[in-house]
Amino acid sequence: MVDTAQLFSTEVTDAVAEADVDTAADMGPIGSADAPDAPVVNVGALSRQLLGTWAEARLAARELTARPEMQRIEGLSMDEHRTRVFGQLKILAAEGQVHRAFPRTLGGFDDHGGNIAGFEELVTADPSLQIKSGVQWGLFGAAVLHLGTAKHHDELLPPIMDLRVPGAFAMTEIGHGSDVARIGTTATYDTEAGEFVLHTPFRAACKDYLGNAAKDGVAAVVFAQLISQGVSHGVHAFYVPIRGADGALLPGIGGEDDGLKGGLNGIDNGRLHFTNVRVPRTNLLNRYGDVAADGTYSSPIASPGRRFFTMLGTLVQGRVSLDGAATAASALALTIAIRYGSERRQFTAGSDSDEEVILDYQRHQRRLLPRLATTYAHTFAHDEFLVKFDAVFSGAADTDEDRQDLETLAAALKPLSTWHALDTLQEAREACGGAGFMAANRLVGLRADLDIYATFEGDNNVLLQLVAKRLLTDYSRSFAKAGFGVLARSAVRQARDRAYHGSGLRSLAQTVVDFRSTARSVGALRHPDVQRALLTDRVETMIAEVAAKLRPATKLPTKQAADLFNSQQNELIEAARAHAELLQWEAFTRALDATADAGTRQVLTWLRDLFGLGLVEKHLAWYLIHGRLSAQRAQAVTAYIDRLNARIRPHALDLVTAFGYSPEHLRAPIATGIERERQNEARDYNRNLRASGTAPVAEKSTTKR
Amino acid sequence: MVDTAQLFSTEVTDAVAEADVDTAADMGPIGSADAPDAPVVNVGALSRQLLGTWAEARLAARELTARPEMQRIEGLSMDEHRTRVFGQLKILAAEGQVHRAFPRTLGGFDDHGGNIAGFEELVTADPSLQIKSGVQWGLFGAAVLHLGTAKHHDELLPPIMDLRVPGAFAMTEIGHGSDVARIGTTATYDTEAGEFVLHTPFRAACKDYLGNAAKDGVAAVVFAQLISQGVSHGVHAFYVPIRGADGALLPGIGGEDDGLKGGLNGIDNGRLHFTNVRVPRTNLLNRYGDVAADGTYSSPIASPGRRFFTMLGTLVQGRVSLDGAATAASALALTIAIRYGSERRQFTAGSDSDEEVILDYQRHQRRLLPRLATTYAHTFAHDEFLVKFDAVFSGAADTDEDRQDLETLAAALKPLSTWHALDTLQEAREACGGAGFMAANRLVGLRADLDIYATFEGDNNVLLQLVAKRLLTDYSRSFAKAGFGVLARSAVRQARDRAYHGSGLRSLAQTVVDFRSTARSVGALRHPDVQRALLTDRVETMIAEVAAKLRPATKLPTKQAADLFNSQQNELIEAARAHAELLQWEAFTRALDATADAGTRQVLTWLRDLFGLGLVEKHLAWYLIHGRLSAQRAQAVTAYIDRLNARIRPHALDLVTAFGYSPEHLRAPIATGIERERQNEARDYNRNLRASGTAPVAEKSTTKR
Repeated sequence: MVDTAQLFSTEVTDAVAEADVDTAADMGPIGSADAPDAPVVNVGALSRQLLGTWAEARLAARELTARPEMQRIEGLSMDEHRTRVFGQLKILAAEGQVHRAFPRTLGGFDDHGGNIAGFEELVTADPSLQIKSGVQWGLFGAAVLHLGTAKHHDELLPPIMDLRVPGAFAMTEIGHGSDVARIGTTATYDTEAGEFVLHTPFRAACKDYLGNAAKDGVAAVVFAQLISQGVSHGVHAFYVPIRGADGALLPGIGGEDDGLKGGLNGIDNGRLHFTNVRVPRTNLLNRYGDVAADGTYSSPIASPGRRFFTMLGTLVQGRVSLDGAATAASALALTIAIRYGSERRQFTAGSDSDEEVILDYQRHQRRLLPRLATTYAHTFAHDEFLVKFDAVFSGAADTDEDRQDLETLAAALKPLSTWHALDTLQEAREACGGAGFMAANRLVGLRADLDIYATFEGDNNVLLQLVAKRLLTDYSRSFAKAGFGVLARSAVRQARDRAYHGSGLRSLAQTVVDFRSTARSVGALRHPDVQRALLTDRVETMIAEVAAKLRPATKLPTKQAADLFNSQQNELIEAARAHAELLQWEAFTRALDATADAGTRQVLTWLRDLFGLGLVEKHLAWYLIHGRLSAQRAQAVTAYIDRLNARIRPHALDLVTAFGYSPEHLRAPIATGIERERQNEARDYNRNLRASGTAPVAEKSTTKR
Repeated sequence: MVDTAQLFSTEVTDAVAEADVDTAADMGPIGSADAPDAPVVNVGALSRQLLGTWAEARLAARELTARPEMQRIEGLSMDEHRTRVFGQLKILAAEGQVHRAFPRTLGGFDDHGGNIAGFEELVTADPSLQIKSGVQWGLFGAAVLHLGTAKHHDELLPPIMDLRVPGAFAMTEIGHGSDVARIGTTATYDTEAGEFVLHTPFRAACKDYLGNAAKDGVAAVVFAQLISQGVSHGVHAFYVPIRGADGALLPGIGGEDDGLKGGLNGIDNGRLHFTNVRVPRTNLLNRYGDVAADGTYSSPIASPGRRFFTMLGTLVQGRVSLDGAATAASALALTIAIRYGSERRQFTAGSDSDEEVILDYQRHQRRLLPRLATTYAHTFAHDEFLVKFDAVFSGAADTDEDRQDLETLAAALKPLSTWHALDTLQEAREACGGAGFMAANRLVGLRADLDIYATFEGDNNVLLQLVAKRLLTDYSRSFAKAGFGVLARSAVRQARDRAYHGSGLRSLAQTVVDFRSTARSVGALRHPDVQRALLTDRVETMIAEVAAKLRPATKLPTKQAADLFNSQQNELIEAARAHAELLQWEAFTRALDATADAGTRQVLTWLRDLFGLGLVEKHLAWYLIHGRLSAQRAQAVTAYIDRLNARIRPHALDLVTAFGYSPEHLRAPIATGIERERQNEARDYNRNLRASGTAPVAEKSTTKR
């Protein structure tokens, strides 16, 4: 964006430079959208593909979110915003949109995937609406559904479904967020009274950040340490009324309003604490653990640890939906920024020519198009994730292993998509300049609301560490009895074990045969097998390396073992991230097989390559250090990414249009064509001025005379 | 943060792993804060050093910002916030705090550096206050001061200084932000009337995003194309009254309120447009260009291009102060997050031990400590920048070259520090979990306000491209007549040309002698000469490579030349970033020389190494591709960073305390020790419970019996 004419007048030398341009040239010609054989994206078909498995649920939700009364109004006070969102929840309840996941017997549809798909779309109306309805039906209601039994379902679910009973999901405490097992609230069974006594023993055990707690909630599912007959059976969930008909907190229950937050201010987050609050024995949501009238505890799951993880696992849908909602927000942000970037002009290449469209600048492409590729990858990965979720929750494929795989998938994908959304919203904001900072153009508001997605429903770093732990466990299972040379052997094994695991976890045994020589050959980087090999090998090698370093831990005292583990924490989390990236790349690649239209498939293939090579570029040092890429080939990665950006640029508008968001969803003046109109007006003005003969001449031209 | 005990029970294999731990081990023992010879930071002395050259101005401003009436109240409506901030501006005016930069003759102090230093500190009270006072005195007032002449100073400045005349700085238009030269507003001289006629010819030429425009401004400095006698002389500034005593816009002036923004809502940004608005000829701020009564144009600067850049150059202080304010915000964010991270506990290493302090986790250190190192680097670099600024504006060193150097420095540092602040505020927010999302803990509000710093006073990407252009120009000057082998020759030359340029621009001739062999030797990475060599060489090589690629441009038609330039845009911007990083590293290294206390110097040296090696790690692929680091050495970089983090961790609290912000500046409940209090309360409770003999036993222990 400098005055290039001026730049070119400076003499540059012929100093040595490694001509990576030549290296990139062997990767095939750059397609041009203007060329007669340029591929064309079938926007309608692509749009249908992006809607995924539960397209109808999504479309129905989008019809709803296109209605003005469901949408956020910028600039409301916190109180006004809360009132508006609560009113919108009543509309959702009345329309039955949010009841798909509930049992048919109670008016639901037992449609778990469709429910989440529709729910995610609410983010385009207002993330506060999405999360508040998530609290009501996805957490509070779902806890009753999944942790309770028939009696709870029959009595409690109907008023939860129709919002007669708004409720809070009281799990997190001030002192314990990620480490739920250590919460301090107690629920002590009083045999004589046949009641549980809920109690907050100290301030750190106050329930905090709970949606519906500050104002609207009349009940809560409270997680507490269940104690009966002097034995603590760990965390269980209890149904606890918290407010009376007058809206006041019931006796023994205290609470405070969390007040203003960085976003999501349409939700009344607050604190709750209990002073010997009594509830009937049957208020224990007793699917996974029960207390008989005489105080005898029983559970279908013998191990307290497994029981705890099973209970928490039923609530995985929060993470599923955040993954989808964050991806929708990224799509929205890119639609706005790419539309604006396709119209906005600034600076000229020559002195008197028309100004350049900013998306034609290499840097602008670099800022937006790789993020577009990532958003596509996340969209495809999310749909597979949702299919897996539906299979588990519908019971179609609901083994212990399925549930563990689902949780690992959730822990892998949610961090990447929520971070990506924040990154994309910010880059889109900056790419729209001052206009991007105006609340009316929505990017800043969405970013403020989605900020918390990175740490709720599981802190992203903690989640990735869970993934890493699973990878380590799988690794140790595969290789427990192997000695040296195990990696070499695994390279052989992979030839007969290429199937994608339903779990989304590629087997760590799947190393790829000698891709190293391939990766050095000309044009190899655009071959999907090479991309897959590079990405897979990195995950496997990282895990193997960490595992080797942790090996002495088994022989160390606890403290030193913990220190050793801690010394690998960063690397472990990076390995988990690499694993999640691989899953997304695989999903994108499978989506290509499902793309029938040749032109669309061509453009999507470039986009997938951009995603894959973007990952390789991000981790380029690793590939070089580990000898997976030569320096020359590594340099070609960046050059090829630049070329892919240039190839994709003519299709950028089609690619964001295919996300399918209408002006009612975008609601950003800068995405409406207003910029182009203003430019046309200015151009007409100047043309008429010149035609009139009254245009002033430039000082520069007068001095030249 | 997983259950490590469980992890360690899984068997891990002895698969091959490159033992970079051994490589790192030769870099010397890890210091321990508990060890008798551990260095101790002299917090008082370090705090004084961080305050920099204008310590007194900073301390005075901090006294002011500690006053509750100067501080932001979270949750105000936009109107309330605007009213509050305008009231705070009146206090600033009454206290004379913001007049330091104005002439002594008018009650100022001609103290340019001190003025900016104090001004920057306002960010801790409320960024809206900082920016609104920046609009009034740093832009509107400064334009009158620097672009006007004696008559303007005498008549206009006193009411600007005491806020009788709040004003807008009307430069940016909807259609032109970064490319100011192309703004559309015209100021046509009417010889008969002796007046300029200001006019907005089309919508894209509306002035937009102007602070003080929506509500408080009664005048504006308006930038417009000056036309006289049919000749356009380019952009000039005019003093234009915009509102009457009744607060209504004057005839011919239209305007709209920009409404809600992503942040800075204490400022009344708005739009202004002009329909043949007449001002006296003498309202032209005529220091760099004047029109005589008969319409004759004259200027002390013959070249219209140079004249334009000279005029804009007088307004560089906006960028200077954003650099400082952003760095202060980073310091504040890290103070909050590191205090909280030093108290907060979550998860245990063993099953029954005390929970771990989260800053003891390797990942948490990785998230916060390198950002602390960067914030230190930015702090030291900013002070040098301010010294340079003061030298130019006081006239002590005010040649054309000085001004160009200053502008390049501003264009290099402002992008990095504003992006760093956003990144740091976000990481700090996430590191504080849900508590970080509460408005009361300030991180989200500061981030929302600072968002726009990345694109105002010059879009960060555009600014970096300006830097790159300067680097290319310098490069071509140095090597215009050199042919092949020039890099080799420059390597010799650097031995006699090591002085740091006052401009902050290291000469591109300063390549470093054969550091390559050094970099491979043991322990070399902690040697400052090696770090300098690595960072310097990268800037030089990147620029040389781009220059070589651009060389054919001189022989190409404009369009192809522009395309060629565009193909290198991303690389150019990265080179500029590398240059800025080098400047910051140099400033940090010079600061070490000024650190008298040995213990402090030791810890700061680790911190500087962390900054330097963090840069090397970030660009590791480049160093590997270009053969500057061996794979083994490259791998050691990451291992050494982990060790540095562990070394610095015991000093982290001292290092943030040294920023010198008191509770009145922090105003974040989580930074007050409240977390530790709650933990002590919980610990006491549990201890008493155990002592009482009524503590429940864990189910696990009962089954074992």
